[in-house]
Amino acid sequence: MKKPLILVTNDDGITAPGLRALIKAMNELGDVIVVAPDSPQSGMGHAITIDSTLYSKKVVIDHQEGAPLEYSCSGTPADCVKLALQEILDRKPDICVSGINHGSNSSINVIYSGTMSAAIEAGIEGIPAIGFSLCDYSWEANFEPTLDSVKRIVSQALMHGIPKGTVLNVNFPKLDQKPNGIKICRQARANWREQFEKRTSPTGKDYYWLSGEFELLDKGQDTDEWALSQGYVSVVPTQFDLTAHHAIPQINNWSLNES
Amino acid sequence: MKKPLILVTNDDGITAPGLRALIKAMNELGDVIVVAPDSPQSGMGHAITIDSTLYSKKVVIDHQEGAPLEYSCSGTPADCVKLALQEILDRKPDICVSGINHGSNSSINVIYSGTMSAAIEAGIEGIPAIGFSLCDYSWEANFEPTLDSVKRIVSQALMHGIPKGTVLNVNFPKLDQKPNGIKICRQARANWREQFEKRTSPTGKDYYWLSGEFELLDKGQDTDEWALSQGYVSVVPTQFDLTAHHAIPQINNWSLNES
Repeated sequence: MKKPLILVTNDDGITAPGLRALIKAMNELGDVIVVAPDSPQSGMGHAITIDSTLYSKKVVIDHQEGAPLEYSCSGTPADCVKLALQEILDRKPDICVSGINHGSNSSINVIYSGTMSAAIEAGIEGIPAIGFSLCDYSWEANFEPTLDSVKRIVSQALMHGIPKGTVLNVNFPKLDQKPNGIKICRQARANWREQFEKRTSPTGKDYYWLSGEFELLDKGQDTDEWALSQGYVSVVPTQFDLTAHHAIPQINNWSLNES
Repeated sequence: MKKPLILVTNDDGITAPGLRALIKAMNELGDVIVVAPDSPQSGMGHAITIDSTLYSKKVVIDHQEGAPLEYSCSGTPADCVKLALQEILDRKPDICVSGINHGSNSSINVIYSGTMSAAIEAGIEGIPAIGFSLCDYSWEANFEPTLDSVKRIVSQALMHGIPKGTVLNVNFPKLDQKPNGIKICRQARANWREQFEKRTSPTGKDYYWLSGEFELLDKGQDTDEWALSQGYVSVVPTQFDLTAHHAIPQINNWSLNES
């Protein structure tokens, strides 16, 4: 049987330990090609490079556990996927996996996520796609406990296919042992309570650092946040048709057109 | 009666004619404060500035038709909204409007849109929000025919409120006269057929320019693309809960957990 072709990317950059762990796991399931940013792209959302040039080159990061083919790219995660599909791969990949992100992309974080933007970009192009994230921002995070679940989810996705118009957002709790299981969830309602720290530069110019605190607004036990809090892996099927269909009738009652 | 407080932003930058047109229209409806990027941010998706500094300063762009208070910000559209809400405004705005974008944000373009990311950011923070875009990429685009509809939509949103968890994505057809009316729509299915143009730099390094063609995959007459093609303004209620609820039962049938 022909091995599946697996496109691997991320947003922390091509040398990130989370990407290297994902490559190692994917090497067991198929033929792996990596196209990943040459520098960290966290918080890039679904940015693309339109008024600037893109560079890409073949690289070897790890002779032992790397992928047979790896390319670094100067662009965003969404750029990497576009470039891979259009210029680098000679056939459509069977699946695109992005991550494993160093840090959570659960709940509202999906909106800001470069990891998920790569997966969504692949999904828009009709390729089954999954973003993986570990709720541990450390560069030295321990990805080992996630790898069995990662392989299981990718295998099942290759076997069953992912529903059309949908990509999977998978988050792992920070754990030293294997998670308690895998739960299919909805995105928890939440936002960030921002804080800006104002500082003054040596030349007297004011500037800000953005930071904030995650604020969960959702007590449901069917959410990704709940699953993660209980030691489970959360899987949220995520769509890129953003239409709020339920809101259409209400807005149709507005006086928008001259009568 | 107290005039509504209107936060205005965009992604083409604080000097863009589309923003200046929106300010002019909003000055008729309420007290306007502008917080907008100091340089163009198109294609930034929902990027935020996390590992870098943000600058912001009070500016005067236009003595006659400008807003009473304007700030430029070195960050992305989402940063502008965060900074406005947290640091600049002393009370919650009654509405946040973003645009008018020079170019379409209909259909799948919403995913890449800096204009809409500002509106979505405000929506996440619980503020009624609308993104406006004109299907004309030119810097000299004619915004005049859009302004009556812009004022009507904002007035109705202030009167009725926007359904919770929803922001409006409004697109205008490129027209020399007033549009045929306003239609509430769903997001049309579409993607971009990418093309990368490969070039070689003077120093012999290969690089790419990204371009592409919009590919409509949807023949429905209830979509934004259809409305725009018929000379109507399209209004898509857009949500930031990305959960594909309909896909949950299907994925629950996968063998994800040991039995």
